Amino acid sequence: MTGPTDAENELPVPSRRHFLRDSGALVGGAILGGLASGEVQAATDAAGADNLPPNIPEWMKAPGEAMGSQLYGTPSAFEKGVVKNIPKNLPQYLSASGRTPLQELDGIITPNGLFYERHHAGVPTIDPAQHRLMLHGLVDKPLIFTMEDIRRFPSQSRIYFLECSGNPVYTKPYGKTASDLVGLLSCAEWTGVSLKLVLQEVGVQPSAKWVVAEGADAAALTRSVPIEKCLDDAMLVYSQNGERLRPQQGYPLRLLLPGYEGNMNVKWLRRLHVTAEPAYSREETSKYTDLMPDGTAREFTFYMEAKSIITRPSGGQRLISPGFHEISGIAWSGRGKIKRVDVSVDDGKSWREAELQEPVLTRALTRFRLPWQWNGEAAVIQSRAIDETGYVQPTLAELLAVRGDNSFYHNNAIWPWRIASSGEVTNAAA
Amino acid sequence: MTGPTDAENELPVPSRRHFLRDSGALVGGAILGGLASGEVQAATDAAGADNLPPNIPEWMKAPGEAMGSQLYGTPSAFEKGVVKNIPKNLPQYLSASGRTPLQELDGIITPNGLFYERHHAGVPTIDPAQHRLMLHGLVDKPLIFTMEDIRRFPSQSRIYFLECSGNPVYTKPYGKTASDLVGLLSCAEWTGVSLKLVLQEVGVQPSAKWVVAEGADAAALTRSVPIEKCLDDAMLVYSQNGERLRPQQGYPLRLLLPGYEGNMNVKWLRRLHVTAEPAYSREETSKYTDLMPDGTAREFTFYMEAKSIITRPSGGQRLISPGFHEISGIAWSGRGKIKRVDVSVDDGKSWREAELQEPVLTRALTRFRLPWQWNGEAAVIQSRAIDETGYVQPTLAELLAVRGDNSFYHNNAIWPWRIASSGEVTNAAA
Repeated sequence: MTGPTDAENELPVPSRRHFLRDSGALVGGAILGGLASGEVQAATDAAGADNLPPNIPEWMKAPGEAMGSQLYGTPSAFEKGVVKNIPKNLPQYLSASGRTPLQELDGIITPNGLFYERHHAGVPTIDPAQHRLMLHGLVDKPLIFTMEDIRRFPSQSRIYFLECSGNPVYTKPYGKTASDLVGLLSCAEWTGVSLKLVLQEVGVQPSAKWVVAEGADAAALTRSVPIEKCLDDAMLVYSQNGERLRPQQGYPLRLLLPGYEGNMNVKWLRRLHVTAEPAYSREETSKYTDLMPDGTAREFTFYMEAKSIITRPSGGQRLISPGFHEISGIAWSGRGKIKRVDVSVDDGKSWREAELQEPVLTRALTRFRLPWQWNGEAAVIQSRAIDETGYVQPTLAELLAVRGDNSFYHNNAIWPWRIASSGEVTNAAA
Repeated sequence: MTGPTDAENELPVPSRRHFLRDSGALVGGAILGGLASGEVQAATDAAGADNLPPNIPEWMKAPGEAMGSQLYGTPSAFEKGVVKNIPKNLPQYLSASGRTPLQELDGIITPNGLFYERHHAGVPTIDPAQHRLMLHGLVDKPLIFTMEDIRRFPSQSRIYFLECSGNPVYTKPYGKTASDLVGLLSCAEWTGVSLKLVLQEVGVQPSAKWVVAEGADAAALTRSVPIEKCLDDAMLVYSQNGERLRPQQGYPLRLLLPGYEGNMNVKWLRRLHVTAEPAYSREETSKYTDLMPDGTAREFTFYMEAKSIITRPSGGQRLISPGFHEISGIAWSGRGKIKRVDVSVDDGKSWREAELQEPVLTRALTRFRLPWQWNGEAAVIQSRAIDETGYVQPTLAELLAVRGDNSFYHNNAIWPWRIASSGEVTNAAA
């Protein structure tokens, strides 16, 4: 087509001069024949193949679906395959999980209908009018709050990710898609109350060191939280992306501990017990700890370390032709903001810095992107996150060298995708 | 209870010393009797009324709902009243609309299921594999794009509001709730392609001044957009809050013109015709223009001016007791960022500056909050937005003085709520 114009030179991507057309990437596009510029007055006047815009498609020939057929909207029927990814053969009432289909999503917000789930005893159906939160223990005045009480406190909204600490676990087989691997990860705008405010209402005593949180599910899931976190950025949340929490995310009330591993963000929160010692509950002793090579348990690790994954192209997808492809993915760190994401397209031999989508928020997903010209040859692509503490996401080999053979949780390794010359994308570390 | 502690003095709200307990605001809360601090080991040990946390609620006595019963999640059955607000008696295929229940929502993100709708010929059911976008007119190379082509361009994500220009119209009766009044307003994270990139692909000619956008609904809704906007921040979007656009928001492709009135953000986008003159379509002549007192039509106004509304407390709600109440609402401006929001609780006699929730993003909703001690007497509350251009949201009287008696669209007036001594909240300007 035409050579680069001044305007094209302003484009921030290195590939701007050979963007879609010259690279053969315009797969379905057809150049209109027989049209004099500016003279086409109506779509039906234009010459064109069947079903191309100059012809009127069927859905323009009669009024569409009437208003009110969906008082609460759902996705298009053509997107019916974009649902939670539920692994088979997991014990329904011990470790059931539903994963977010990350490879189908854009941006950083996870829609509530696709937010990941992880339950230890199913999802309780809780009447918010009957639900109570008790604060007791090392406090001046133990109190019981209704949801109306909680809603009456000053509110705040924050965009934070949540991630399960077994995302993925170290045991094979590793998954085929980004969702299989790290789909126990989502991000939402949460609204609720600063836990610090509520603790001030009951008066925390000087001997308090821990707050033991208990959920109102049949597992009574219990985790111990350091008092410092509770007086820092911890929240009691009741809304998620504007509307009330979904049942699967803790309706009507959830403890939110920004950056902490998912299960500590206790759902269906009913009790906060202020104590001098942790509870040493099942979920912080038998589970969610890492057995180290020397036989000790790595426990109470709390923060999810920096991590990233390329979601497009990723396992299960296919590059339909050589030429321009945008590499896009997400990065996150429980320690704060993502500072940089590097991407390699040559199996880790060299790395280029990706563009980060603003706003880059603390403990939220950060979308990164890198333009790429694929030459049609086999390649291995991967991303590496660096957070504001300077921590660099490790390779799986580096992680295993420290954690040994018995690791299960807290796998934040770099994950490579293999692209075949056919364009098929598979898990390069499976 | 106890007097203020040092920790309480750190709270940023003026009412911190008499927050919930001393103000009588703790409506459902009960102070636990018979508990020595720190000695309650299990919830069942504690004395308490029926259904309070010391007793085990029914939903903890058996496993909850199994995983996979909802592959795409929906809200709790207890939230079934939180749905789109569909005015009765609107012509189904001319001006049907479904409003976002703003008074039920927190934060700034609107969940996709509650995003507002406004259709001129119903919602078409479009197969994305068959959908095409044609760019033609004053361009070097007219092109037709498939959705796969569009997806292959570099992407970007932005959080922007969308608002109908008849939100509300000037004609009475005015609505009872925030949704009745300004519910044709929502905000999402959009992902798509910079329109500038796509226009560069076809090569815009120097004589181009407008781009006429056409939707693939039965109304073939058509609007003319200045070329400057198309080469600035305009986008072709295919995703909304992570997942693909909902059919009601233009699936599979929508023109997004940040800050412009809603109907110009053409849904089901099938054609962009680059021209020297606007189309003078129905929607920019007969409709969406304002008849001024001198008989001229105020047309092509494009940008939605700065506006705000208190959503809590708001019409249809009730303050259950005097004491502390947070006043919370949303502000937005098509011209850029919200700079300040003032709130009056004395019928406009005095104003206090509200706190703005970070991040404050350009052309996105901004959540504002102000702590308030309600003394139980009748009051009128209202908010006033100021944007980064210095523009101040006007009163209805100020607006009518300029627009005259025939105004219909583009009403961005301050809207007051009346609070009765009973706590009932009603529209003070109805």
